[in-house]
Amino acid sequence: MSNGQSACDLTLKGIERAAERLAGVIHNTPLSRSETFSQMAGGEVYLKYENLQKTGSFKIRGAYNKIRELKEEGDIKEVVAASAGNHAQGVAFASQQLGIKATIVMPKSTPIAKVKATEGYGAAVCLAGDCYDDAYAKALEIQEEKGAVFIHPFNDCSVIAGQGTIGYDILKSIPSVDIVFLPAGGGGLLAGVAYYLKNINPRVQIIGVQAEGANAIYRSFNEKQLVTLPYVSTIADGIAVKTPGSLTQELINQYVDRIVTVSDADISSAILSLLERNKQVVEPAGAASLAAVLSGAVNVRGKRSVCVLSGGNIDVSFIHRIIEIGLVARNRKLKFKTVMPDIPGSLQKFSTIMSEAFANIVMVQYDRMSADLDPHEVILHIACEVGGKEHGEQVIRMLQQNGYQVIME
Amino acid sequence: MSNGQSACDLTLKGIERAAERLAGVIHNTPLSRSETFSQMAGGEVYLKYENLQKTGSFKIRGAYNKIRELKEEGDIKEVVAASAGNHAQGVAFASQQLGIKATIVMPKSTPIAKVKATEGYGAAVCLAGDCYDDAYAKALEIQEEKGAVFIHPFNDCSVIAGQGTIGYDILKSIPSVDIVFLPAGGGGLLAGVAYYLKNINPRVQIIGVQAEGANAIYRSFNEKQLVTLPYVSTIADGIAVKTPGSLTQELINQYVDRIVTVSDADISSAILSLLERNKQVVEPAGAASLAAVLSGAVNVRGKRSVCVLSGGNIDVSFIHRIIEIGLVARNRKLKFKTVMPDIPGSLQKFSTIMSEAFANIVMVQYDRMSADLDPHEVILHIACEVGGKEHGEQVIRMLQQNGYQVIME
Repeated sequence: MSNGQSACDLTLKGIERAAERLAGVIHNTPLSRSETFSQMAGGEVYLKYENLQKTGSFKIRGAYNKIRELKEEGDIKEVVAASAGNHAQGVAFASQQLGIKATIVMPKSTPIAKVKATEGYGAAVCLAGDCYDDAYAKALEIQEEKGAVFIHPFNDCSVIAGQGTIGYDILKSIPSVDIVFLPAGGGGLLAGVAYYLKNINPRVQIIGVQAEGANAIYRSFNEKQLVTLPYVSTIADGIAVKTPGSLTQELINQYVDRIVTVSDADISSAILSLLERNKQVVEPAGAASLAAVLSGAVNVRGKRSVCVLSGGNIDVSFIHRIIEIGLVARNRKLKFKTVMPDIPGSLQKFSTIMSEAFANIVMVQYDRMSADLDPHEVILHIACEVGGKEHGEQVIRMLQQNGYQVIME
Repeated sequence: MSNGQSACDLTLKGIERAAERLAGVIHNTPLSRSETFSQMAGGEVYLKYENLQKTGSFKIRGAYNKIRELKEEGDIKEVVAASAGNHAQGVAFASQQLGIKATIVMPKSTPIAKVKATEGYGAAVCLAGDCYDDAYAKALEIQEEKGAVFIHPFNDCSVIAGQGTIGYDILKSIPSVDIVFLPAGGGGLLAGVAYYLKNINPRVQIIGVQAEGANAIYRSFNEKQLVTLPYVSTIADGIAVKTPGSLTQELINQYVDRIVTVSDADISSAILSLLERNKQVVEPAGAASLAAVLSGAVNVRGKRSVCVLSGGNIDVSFIHRIIEIGLVARNRKLKFKTVMPDIPGSLQKFSTIMSEAFANIVMVQYDRMSADLDPHEVILHIACEVGGKEHGEQVIRMLQQNGYQVIME
């Protein structure tokens, strides 16, 4: 392992060369200790804030290194990429910096804000198809037509080397690091950082984190073969990948210690903690690494851990949904229904109990249309804020003692 | 002015003494140039990130300086304060650091999260009354009973000196600053920073920013007398103050160049920009300074400006509401109603047009209960996401061309 042999021509020198290329082009993002999370986890927890990176994610590292390398090697005029997310902005920004034309193919369903951000970096955006696969096919067409170079989001040694520079940054700041947590979708970030850190210091534990609903690398790692998922389902769109890269998975199998999975509720709760305690906006994929620590998936007691917050590009309209899931996951929000007589005073009686229980009602919906409902009754759907698990249970008990049947929703 | 005479015994030395006291106790928060906002404003815009300060706001500065001074001066065992917000956490944290007992009186309506945060710093929390005035009265009672020292949130020279240390930080980092924007409620931050900067360098323009619905300092400044508002109404709870301090207003009248006001829509739009572009959570009061620049209330073209983002303590349940207001203010969300026949196929016809117009529907509500409605019709309330002003107008035009009457909501 120490000779740094790998599936592709990845070398320690290649990663350090990438770090040199990136110096001055990208931000040297903060890597700092979080008091709150250290206390919660019982170990020293450091966060690497790649949500504050240029273009809002680490993806600029791989994209820039790749395109710069192509330029150094010879005549390149145009690149093309397929992505609805961070890779699109990374390629667009890198191309702009290097004076190269870029076309980014995005699925038609891509949020308008992401299209505008990509165009803002001077790239031509081509909307095609309903999903990534369609966009990918279109990008290959463009590659043929225009003779543009296709920039793969992860299964490319120069891209992997670029992402690996985060390992270089971590070691430079915290040489005594024990564990590094990295989110994994296609596996470029995980492969690059694992390769670098393990070759420098095999004692460092490398842990890849996937979403439960998109666990292709987890399964490929454990089943010792490249697994393709029939579908993926997670709020963490940045790591919702059906098939890992062949190169990345081989590196992961060789250099990563363990892959763990976290639920969407774990991720939402981590995002909420980062908003509330650290005042940071982190996207779901980016918060997965911290979710692995806070959910207890890995015990970090007494250890010095680094969680890489890989990006911050979250649609603001989506933040609300995340907050909802996170509050429910943390027992700070109750959603339930109850049946009450459809007569004057019913809501008053109910809301008096809620008020006495110190529960803050945030949503009331009347439903008179359910087929199995007595005509003199109405179903009330309620959402309320409470202080936590105990308080929530107390609210429910008070309602039950007053004759209400409470059905959680 | 250069001799530093003032309403109270505030001196340059007092502020620098406060900075010494605070060193090592609080964070040296980042003060950095924002590329995005510089481009938008046509000048160099720097942000001072006090949302990343310990306890989540600058209030720790004044509270710590005051209590530390009391301790240096003699025998102090207990302090009391009234606050539903950042001052509560500032006093609680400062007292804990200095080993002094603290009681914080909070209105009963205070969000549970803020009560817990204050208790988390070791303070006793006493819930009393329905508003700040009730809590204040209770705090004075406790002061009498226990012989505790009351810590005023702004009308106190040592508190003002503590807040003034932000001026010291700014000058140390950017000696060539032209304009400094500060949010103002009670006026402690504005008075302290203005006093410091103007006495060091009278060339620096100091601009106080208030919410339109809580403009007591603005009016007091212009009317040359202390104005008390009958009520305040703004999303910026941190600066929703009915009466400025007598000391702070006198300093403001003497040292501040101009007070401007911003609307809740301006503030929400600034918060949204900070979430989207800077990945930072800033509370409404904290974003007011940037709102003054982005709304064009002050022209900063060609100047070097600093906006103090004074805090980041925003209730997560409230972020959703802010995002809503911000999206509407930026024409990225449309809310309207329309009438359609109450027959099968109505929604299909409507939604086909919306789909062709590339508008993303996020809310549909049926209303069959309006008194003036034809029994064969139904009102549809719609919210949808669009790319911006032009796109929104295009969507409405397409609906109108298809015979729908669109009434904005």
